[in-house]
Amino acid sequence: MAKADFLSNNRFTLRLELVNKPGVFASVATLIASVKADLGAVDIVEVTPYTIIRDVTFYVSNQKDADKILKGLEKLENVKTIAVSDKILLLHLGGKIQVQNKTPIQTRNQLSMAYTPGVAKVAQAIAETPDKVYKLTIKSNSVAIVTDGSAVLGLGNLGPEAALPVMEGKAMIFKEFANIDAWPICLATQDVDEIVKTVQNISPAFGGINLEDISAPRCFEIEEKLKKILSIPVMHDDQHGTAVVILAALKNALKIVKKDMEGVRVVVNGLGAAGAACCRILLSAGVRNLYGCNRKGVVLIVDETNLGQARKDLFSCATLDVPSLTLREALCTVDVFIGVSAGNILTGKDLNRMKEDRIVFAMANPDPEVDPHEAFKVCRIFATGRSDFPNQINNALAFPGIFRGALNVRAKVINEEMKIAAADAIANLVLENQLSSEYIIPSIFDKRVVEAVTKAVEQAAYQTGVARKLILKDTDVEIID
Amino acid sequence: MAKADFLSNNRFTLRLELVNKPGVFASVATLIASVKADLGAVDIVEVTPYTIIRDVTFYVSNQKDADKILKGLEKLENVKTIAVSDKILLLHLGGKIQVQNKTPIQTRNQLSMAYTPGVAKVAQAIAETPDKVYKLTIKSNSVAIVTDGSAVLGLGNLGPEAALPVMEGKAMIFKEFANIDAWPICLATQDVDEIVKTVQNISPAFGGINLEDISAPRCFEIEEKLKKILSIPVMHDDQHGTAVVILAALKNALKIVKKDMEGVRVVVNGLGAAGAACCRILLSAGVRNLYGCNRKGVVLIVDETNLGQARKDLFSCATLDVPSLTLREALCTVDVFIGVSAGNILTGKDLNRMKEDRIVFAMANPDPEVDPHEAFKVCRIFATGRSDFPNQINNALAFPGIFRGALNVRAKVINEEMKIAAADAIANLVLENQLSSEYIIPSIFDKRVVEAVTKAVEQAAYQTGVARKLILKDTDVEIID
Repeated sequence: MAKADFLSNNRFTLRLELVNKPGVFASVATLIASVKADLGAVDIVEVTPYTIIRDVTFYVSNQKDADKILKGLEKLENVKTIAVSDKILLLHLGGKIQVQNKTPIQTRNQLSMAYTPGVAKVAQAIAETPDKVYKLTIKSNSVAIVTDGSAVLGLGNLGPEAALPVMEGKAMIFKEFANIDAWPICLATQDVDEIVKTVQNISPAFGGINLEDISAPRCFEIEEKLKKILSIPVMHDDQHGTAVVILAALKNALKIVKKDMEGVRVVVNGLGAAGAACCRILLSAGVRNLYGCNRKGVVLIVDETNLGQARKDLFSCATLDVPSLTLREALCTVDVFIGVSAGNILTGKDLNRMKEDRIVFAMANPDPEVDPHEAFKVCRIFATGRSDFPNQINNALAFPGIFRGALNVRAKVINEEMKIAAADAIANLVLENQLSSEYIIPSIFDKRVVEAVTKAVEQAAYQTGVARKLILKDTDVEIID
Repeated sequence: MAKADFLSNNRFTLRLELVNKPGVFASVATLIASVKADLGAVDIVEVTPYTIIRDVTFYVSNQKDADKILKGLEKLENVKTIAVSDKILLLHLGGKIQVQNKTPIQTRNQLSMAYTPGVAKVAQAIAETPDKVYKLTIKSNSVAIVTDGSAVLGLGNLGPEAALPVMEGKAMIFKEFANIDAWPICLATQDVDEIVKTVQNISPAFGGINLEDISAPRCFEIEEKLKKILSIPVMHDDQHGTAVVILAALKNALKIVKKDMEGVRVVVNGLGAAGAACCRILLSAGVRNLYGCNRKGVVLIVDETNLGQARKDLFSCATLDVPSLTLREALCTVDVFIGVSAGNILTGKDLNRMKEDRIVFAMANPDPEVDPHEAFKVCRIFATGRSDFPNQINNALAFPGIFRGALNVRAKVINEEMKIAAADAIANLVLENQLSSEYIIPSIFDKRVVEAVTKAVEQAAYQTGVARKLILKDTDVEIID
């Protein structure tokens, strides 16, 4: 339903070039009204003394009315239709990111400093002292966003080209939220070893690798191998970004219900990339009773007897072929349900089986595991990945600050301690006296988030010995030679 | 000599933060004068109501005087030294390019259009109609600048990290001259097949591949293999960019001396990447008598007897082990000398052996094959790769427009016809009545160059059937769905 609505063709956006004089836009508005269509947003794209380019959105009940408007526009003398599309597609025309020069190259002197012959000196300096690549090039602030297109959003294996607009969006978030220069790398292979080799080969010019939208279980192996080979941070965001934010939300939810990590039993439904990472970070954060559930049922049971083993190797405790319980059976004994699976697999009645003060995070996209309207009735705390309900668990809360911190201190890796520090930082931004069932996690537009996560991650990197750079104090002088 | 001067440490640039009030800068100038150092350029980097950041350059005769200035600065109350370096290194701090978002992501609505959930529609549209990746992503305007660092400028095998500042400079030229978004890819491998595989794997998000600073003969094989595998343009600029501009310069030089391609004999000294490509384009452009010379002597002789064979496979005519002539012997019979080899290997006397109306292009960097002052005395037309003499043969005249044209028409390849069209376009910008011995090639800052090359390349792509996109006319309406 949400999907059909979303793909609806009832909304059209026109990019129109109008002669810049009074009455011209009115003629367009009149035309749209004449077929009883609704006029929506009208944005100005560009203005010159002679013309105005506007994106005009309208809503019709059928294609025929839309065609009437398009035909009618052809007859309007001072109006030229440049493109017909919806706003989202128009936004994507030509892509969403670009390269920008930090200094102009408009004179011979500028060119001779940024390129030959001047740049030779910089190349030689780096060849002599390899570490200078961090100071004198883009490496220290560059992240490759690497995908093979095998698990694009919740849409499946759409391939590398279809993944590109998603990676561009990710790059935009990196830039806007953390001033990191990230560039999309979409791979024409889905072979684990070839992906590892390719990322290794392109790594010299990047300061970090963000793996994205790679399907499980391949993503685990790729990330593990790359972490072993490379000395720059590698993080599969679908796993760890999500896990960090879930942990932050859970920390605050537990404060409200006055339970603790050690005491609660959690069921994680869905053991793909996000689910597995979520289980791992929960165990690191103190959870001692954990069920993991896949399509077949509960296949992973962690309790006091195998806790140590599970913290070392999560799936050693799993019996993937013979489920011990069904999800519904498991629900009867748990305090917390975390869904990273598929939409509408549970009802409010199912959730009612859980222990009192139910905490339910239903993260499936676009439809949560349970209808939010039902869930709100039976849960003490309910969160989703969606922006149209309270408590949005969005990995954009985590990854910009995690990479910002890791790059700042030139961390070798992004380790478990850094992720947990990030979760703490996010959780602590909601003060105890602000906490409520509907406010367990800050907004992604809360400017404090990136700064707090960055600092926490930097500190954790120092404490765990993976930081390679001291941040200069204000009074330090840098000698570059 | 040029090199030593260039690497001199007598010039220092300080980045200073000065309290923004009268007399503060004067205190710095007084200090510099007190050790008899010369004050150079003073640039403003940033101004706030309270502080001014300036880059101050000075020249000293020894390190001791420089130290005195640095010590003295510490004692100046309103002056803080942020960094000590030269101007070129300061320009490179943190790298020279960055990512820029084309639209902001500051509201939930903006985020939901550029990223999830809105971007899902774009990903699906591309998955259904793969060609839409050109319209709805950065692919159509993106070029990967790929190097393995094996032949960085004229400096040799410095490795991928040291090559990065050069690739950034290249990216800046792409952006400034042709508005192309190019991103550096520096490879951690120098194995031919691995480079080919890696570039193939990262190709989906790029509209073109610019190979750069890869040593010969590996560069030939890498380029050939990639051209066969990929359906986007691949060009090794050190080969073809240089060859195109040399051809353009030679066309105009021959007009001045009233000779033609078919009638002249040319010797190309140096058979590396640029030399081999230069030989090939000259044969394509009509040259029928050609010597190729490596360190051992003349190993490649093309004349009427093997011209057809040489045009198909240049090196089939080469006897790389047993030179037929020495370079000096060869000079006696040639009209044109093209050096893409090493500095100072010839004298004016050597050039004097050539036929009348000598045309000499001495492209070695930073020192040309022959001292320019000697060469000017004996040559009718003399050109170098340097900006401080007339007739600079610079591949920045060619590659921005070649890629711009290829991307505009979505060419499958950059073929020989497109390169020759580019050379013609560059040559024709110098009108017959403007041509002189000191003006055979336009300046790289001549704004007409990119436009002329672009148009010529687009047209040649259409004529040879490698263009895949019609450029929309003003009156066309695009329906994007």
